[in-house]
Amino acid sequence: MAAKIPTRLHLDEEEIPKYWYNLRSAMKEKPQPILHPGTLEPIDAAGLEAVFCQEPVKQELDETTPLIPIPEGIQDFYRAYRPSGLIRAYFLEKVLGTPAEIYYKFEGTNTSGSHKLNSAGPQAYYAKEEGLRSLTTETGAGQWGTAMAMACAFYGLDLTVFMVKVSAEQKPYRKTLIETYGAELIPSPSETTEAGKAILAQDPHTTGSLGCAISEAIERAMKTDKCRYVLGSVLNHVMLHQSIIGQEAKAALDKYGISPDIIIGCAGGGSNLGGLIAPFMGDKLAGKSQARFIAVEPISCPTFTRGRYAYDFGDTGKTTPLIKMMTLGSGFIPAGSHAGGLRYHGMNSTLSKLFVDGYIEARSERQSEVFDAAVQFMKVEGILPAPESAHAIKAAMDEALECKKTGEKKVILFGLSGTGYFDLSAFMAYNDKTLKDHVPTQEELDRGFASIPDIPQNSSMEK
Amino acid sequence: MAAKIPTRLHLDEEEIPKYWYNLRSAMKEKPQPILHPGTLEPIDAAGLEAVFCQEPVKQELDETTPLIPIPEGIQDFYRAYRPSGLIRAYFLEKVLGTPAEIYYKFEGTNTSGSHKLNSAGPQAYYAKEEGLRSLTTETGAGQWGTAMAMACAFYGLDLTVFMVKVSAEQKPYRKTLIETYGAELIPSPSETTEAGKAILAQDPHTTGSLGCAISEAIERAMKTDKCRYVLGSVLNHVMLHQSIIGQEAKAALDKYGISPDIIIGCAGGGSNLGGLIAPFMGDKLAGKSQARFIAVEPISCPTFTRGRYAYDFGDTGKTTPLIKMMTLGSGFIPAGSHAGGLRYHGMNSTLSKLFVDGYIEARSERQSEVFDAAVQFMKVEGILPAPESAHAIKAAMDEALECKKTGEKKVILFGLSGTGYFDLSAFMAYNDKTLKDHVPTQEELDRGFASIPDIPQNSSMEK
Repeated sequence: MAAKIPTRLHLDEEEIPKYWYNLRSAMKEKPQPILHPGTLEPIDAAGLEAVFCQEPVKQELDETTPLIPIPEGIQDFYRAYRPSGLIRAYFLEKVLGTPAEIYYKFEGTNTSGSHKLNSAGPQAYYAKEEGLRSLTTETGAGQWGTAMAMACAFYGLDLTVFMVKVSAEQKPYRKTLIETYGAELIPSPSETTEAGKAILAQDPHTTGSLGCAISEAIERAMKTDKCRYVLGSVLNHVMLHQSIIGQEAKAALDKYGISPDIIIGCAGGGSNLGGLIAPFMGDKLAGKSQARFIAVEPISCPTFTRGRYAYDFGDTGKTTPLIKMMTLGSGFIPAGSHAGGLRYHGMNSTLSKLFVDGYIEARSERQSEVFDAAVQFMKVEGILPAPESAHAIKAAMDEALECKKTGEKKVILFGLSGTGYFDLSAFMAYNDKTLKDHVPTQEELDRGFASIPDIPQNSSMEK
Repeated sequence: MAAKIPTRLHLDEEEIPKYWYNLRSAMKEKPQPILHPGTLEPIDAAGLEAVFCQEPVKQELDETTPLIPIPEGIQDFYRAYRPSGLIRAYFLEKVLGTPAEIYYKFEGTNTSGSHKLNSAGPQAYYAKEEGLRSLTTETGAGQWGTAMAMACAFYGLDLTVFMVKVSAEQKPYRKTLIETYGAELIPSPSETTEAGKAILAQDPHTTGSLGCAISEAIERAMKTDKCRYVLGSVLNHVMLHQSIIGQEAKAALDKYGISPDIIIGCAGGGSNLGGLIAPFMGDKLAGKSQARFIAVEPISCPTFTRGRYAYDFGDTGKTTPLIKMMTLGSGFIPAGSHAGGLRYHGMNSTLSKLFVDGYIEARSERQSEVFDAAVQFMKVEGILPAPESAHAIKAAMDEALECKKTGEKKVILFGLSGTGYFDLSAFMAYNDKTLKDHVPTQEELDRGFASIPDIPQNSSMEK
């Protein structure tokens, strides 16, 4: 490399990608289709449009178009906070004493605090274009709810967020932020829906669950005129929108002639990982790259590393369509962990297929070690990472230390998907040395697997 | 303007300014010297070096050097999070329907959440260069403490932060963040210093004050080997470091041939305002610009708009050297306000002199209206502002609306000094409509003025 690579690899505004990259278009073998849970037949656009907006449904079902134009109205939204930073981790490299070059793409400087905004904007935009008046969604930790509240404020749409009750109580400031952006926030379960009432009748003191909040949000959307439901992860149209992360990273690296050898992302539902790797994986599938791809998950919720490849429900209530994916079973109950965004039993279908086909490696990490890495990182790079994102830091540091042993000058790119501002209780636990690691027992896993529906394809195509 | 101005006016890494701008060098009439509180004689370097680091003291006393080189070791630090964003507020302009062009310099994307990091880095660097092992400081709301903790982690120095007890209790996450960066945090008053013990003896249940925390931090520094005290506002070397804000803003605007007509900043101790306006004011003092400068303060703490120009103490304990400044008196007790960073009785001496000489306008704002402006801003620009910074938003919006009336196409630049992530309780109060405005009565002001020391110059030179 002739010119010195700056700490921040910049893209000018006109260099922000104008297309999302549809990774499925590069796959010879596509992911299995989504099935209707009643008929077990592939679901079509009409079936999905009852719940979701039209254009996202079209994108969900589009497996062939490589580049999907980002409408001008969404480019506007992206310009308000993008390009996100692509940073050369000079200080981290120095403290590790590694010959590796480490880069990270940081999605945490927007007010929602994470990459979630990249799909919230498009979903709100399409809803507005379609003539809808309002949207509903659910939120657990609060990142997605905040992102949707911001996007709906920007485009002028009403929004109702069903927030898992225990989260709404533990994170009053997340609630405040969502409400300040003008959204209605309802702790779930609530008396405002039949689904909520039924759960409250069973257990009036329940603290709620993501599965229940999803059910309430969908019910509200279906019963409201000019209203639809939006989801922030797992689905392929969400991953498509998130490809802006990888597209930007690639454009910035290309300007300096840099090709990453190893690309690392944390994996919950897969939207951040899938978005980051999309164009790089496209090159690999086309035989133009030998890069390695590493998904990092918590040892307490080992979807890739200990899960099964099977058709499963997306929610604990078993109401959603069936998705063929790596799953621990919708009945799997992960132990408490501070990386709330990684506590999901399933995984995006495209990433699951790529994993099964050997294109993605996966590893699981203990949260105590993840926080060690996070704190080492923040002391030299300055940035407080989200616990989820810190899983990628841990793996990147391990790969860089491996290079130190071998002397190889590899190029490592990792995704820093969000800020830890709203996770300081986790760092408090780390400082107090009260963080606990839980490795699920085989019995606990088996209880989860038992919840996977028993349909013909599951047994034959199981990994 | 031929080329369209982008939403973000970028500077490449090599365009980050390599000099701080010393505004006093451009002033024909300099601010009055700092006085020793006992002798009432101007204090010299030796007097200040007992408490502060050597190089900052040199900078504090340097009134003539226009450009002070930023050492390579500090440029390194700045590269970790700078340049900060200079953003064209296209969305705000549109919603206001103004012909004005609005730009803002956003200092809130670094983990400390505000501009404070711009001086924390240099102060830690100089301490390390001088061979010190540790530093002490105090923090109220927590921004400065966090910034110093980050800087000391980066340069490898120990740090003790005395945090006002009530803040440490109300903001446990600020405490966590500071501790995670490796600093020792002591709620003040504490039993670890004579100053703290004396106050606790008087009132064991006191919630602490900034004045007391300052006393404890200075005492600890003076009693510790290879240790000094650092301060994050008010002093001229702090404002010098903060000139990086204005230097960057000017460099980015210059690239597009833009000269602001109105420059607006919120004013607490003056470091953010002074840093933002420095090079632009230099042009004005040299007769090269007709720009207007507006300082915005809370109506509850009207230092510029209702204060006096007099020698006064920097702390409520009346232990610091005397500074000639706009002041409400160190005994003035501002009503509770959510803009904690603007609740200071005094003002940087350079800005005070420029105000008295007519170069800076000032206005005070009600916090209810400031929050109205903040929420309107965040809905279109996306960014959650700190309540302090929102004072500048309010004034910028008012100026833009004035342009709408007159049809003038003025260029407005304002400083967005920090993020509101740690101020969500304030937004909660706003949403609940429990925000209160307090306009100090003349009696309250008079009580404050009565605390201003009665020394000859004060009566003769009072404004």
